[in-house]
Amino acid sequence: MALIVDGRRIANRIKERVSSDLKKLASEYGIAPAMATIMIGNNEESELYFKLREKASKEVGIKSKLYRFPDDATEREIIDTILDLNKDEEIHGIMVQRPVPNHLSLFNILSKIDPDKDVEGMAPQNLGNLFLGRETIVPCTPLAILKILDHTGVKLEGANAVIINHSPIIGKPLAILLLNRNATVSVCHVFTRDLLKYTREADILVTATGTPNLIGREHVKNGSIIIDAGISKTEKGICGDVDFDGVKDKAGIITPVPGGVGPVTIACVFENLLKLYKKRVQGG
Amino acid sequence: MALIVDGRRIANRIKERVSSDLKKLASEYGIAPAMATIMIGNNEESELYFKLREKASKEVGIKSKLYRFPDDATEREIIDTILDLNKDEEIHGIMVQRPVPNHLSLFNILSKIDPDKDVEGMAPQNLGNLFLGRETIVPCTPLAILKILDHTGVKLEGANAVIINHSPIIGKPLAILLLNRNATVSVCHVFTRDLLKYTREADILVTATGTPNLIGREHVKNGSIIIDAGISKTEKGICGDVDFDGVKDKAGIITPVPGGVGPVTIACVFENLLKLYKKRVQGG
Repeated sequence: MALIVDGRRIANRIKERVSSDLKKLASEYGIAPAMATIMIGNNEESELYFKLREKASKEVGIKSKLYRFPDDATEREIIDTILDLNKDEEIHGIMVQRPVPNHLSLFNILSKIDPDKDVEGMAPQNLGNLFLGRETIVPCTPLAILKILDHTGVKLEGANAVIINHSPIIGKPLAILLLNRNATVSVCHVFTRDLLKYTREADILVTATGTPNLIGREHVKNGSIIIDAGISKTEKGICGDVDFDGVKDKAGIITPVPGGVGPVTIACVFENLLKLYKKRVQGG
Repeated sequence: MALIVDGRRIANRIKERVSSDLKKLASEYGIAPAMATIMIGNNEESELYFKLREKASKEVGIKSKLYRFPDDATEREIIDTILDLNKDEEIHGIMVQRPVPNHLSLFNILSKIDPDKDVEGMAPQNLGNLFLGRETIVPCTPLAILKILDHTGVKLEGANAVIINHSPIIGKPLAILLLNRNATVSVCHVFTRDLLKYTREADILVTATGTPNLIGREHVKNGSIIIDAGISKTEKGICGDVDFDGVKDKAGIITPVPGGVGPVTIACVFENLLKLYKKRVQGG
C-alpha cells in the first residue's frame, strides 16, 4: 500500500508559516498585504476556485480584491487595469484567473504584469529566470509539486521524472525546475506516441491532463512516486488522472485528488505573495 | 549510409539572406548594423571563436566592436558597459562571450542586457517568452538545431526527441522549443542513470556534451536523426560527441563535426541581429 500524501496538511503548514511571517511584517511596516485577481467572463470553476482562494486568503491575512470584466472585454481594458495595479502601492500581487476568453492573448496580458507583483510566476522575466537557475517567483502548481516531492524525501538528482503536460503553466516550467535539480526529465502530452513506454520507467510520474483514469496500474513502476495534478468532474465527484484504487498498492507514494496537489497550489500562491510583499516593504 | 547534413551550406544560405536584408535596410535607413562583444579574460577558444565570427560578421555587413576586460574585472565594470551599450544608438546587439571568470555571475550580467539588444536570446525576458510560445529572440545553438531539423524535413509533432545537455544555453531552451512543436522531449545529462535506454528510442538525438565518442552505434536508433553539437579538441583534430564512422550507416541523417551545427550557430547570431536591427530601425 502506497503512502498517501496529505496535501491539506502540507498546505496548512505553509499557510501557517506565511500567515505568521505576514503578520509580523504587517505590524512592523503598517502595510496590509493585498492581492488583486482579474477575472474575465463567467466561468463556474473560476468562480469556485476564486471563492476557495478568497476564503483561504482571509485566514492567512491577505486582503483580496477582485476586478471583474465581461466576456467581451478588450485587451486594452485588461492591460490598463494591470498597469494601474502595477502602480498601486496597496497591491502586492496580481493574478489573472484562467481561462481567459479566446479573443484575448494571455501572453500580451501576462507580459504586462510587473515581475515584482507577479504572484503566479508567469511574467516572462520570472519564467526566464528559471532557465538561469534563479527561482525567484516560481509558477504555483510546479512549486506545489516541488514541495510535495521535497516532503517525500526523494532524491531528485538522477531520478527518472516523467511529466504528462506541456503547458506553460505546469509542464514546461516543472521540467526546467526538475532539470535544475539534475533529474532526467521526459515531457509527454497528447501527441506522445507511446505513453506507456515513458511512464513505466518513471521514478517520479507527474500527470496533469484532466483525463480520468489515463494512468492505470500498467503505467506505473513499482514503488514509484505518483503526483496527480489532474482535475475532472465526474459522476463520482472530483477525480484526477490516476486510477487511484488500481495504482495505490503498486506505487510507493501517491497524491490523492482532491486533497493532494490542489490545496498545496493555493498555499503556494500565498507563499509567492509573501515573497513579493517582503521584497516590497523591505525594499530588497 | 546516412545523409550527412552540410552545415556550411545551410549557414551560407542564412548569411546570404541576412546580408541582403541588412543591406537594403541599411541603405534605406542610413544606419550601419553593429554588434558589441564583451570578452572577459584570456581564453584561447573564445579568441578563436570571436575571430571566426568577426570575419563572418564583415562578410554579412555587420560592424563588430570588441570590449575587452581583464580576468579580474568586476561585475560592476561589466554591467556599466552593458548599460552604456543599451543606450548606445549605434549598437544593435550585445553578446557576452563565454566562459566568464568564476567570480562573475552570468545571471547578473545577462539580466542587464536590454531584451531588444539581446542577440543571443539569453536575457530572462526573451527566455521567458519561449515558455509562452513567443519565440522572439531564440538562443543561437537551439535555433541552429531547429534550422537543421527543419532542413531535414522531419515532422517534429509526436517525434521522440532526446537531448543530452541541460545547460541554460542549449538543452533547456531547446527542450522548450521542441515542446512548443509538440515533440515528446527527454533531457539527459551527466546525472542520467541509463543513457542508452533514452538514446536508443530517439527519433531525434541531440548531443552537446564535449565528450568524444559518448554516442556509439549501440546508442542510436535505426534511421534516426543525429545532431552533434559537441566540440572537443583531440589528437585527431576537432570532433563531436558521436562516433561518426560507427554511427553513419545506422542513422538516417547525421551532422558532422566540424561543418555541422557550428557554422549554422554563427549564422543564427546574425539572423538574431537582423531581427533586432529591423525592430530598431523600423520602430516595430
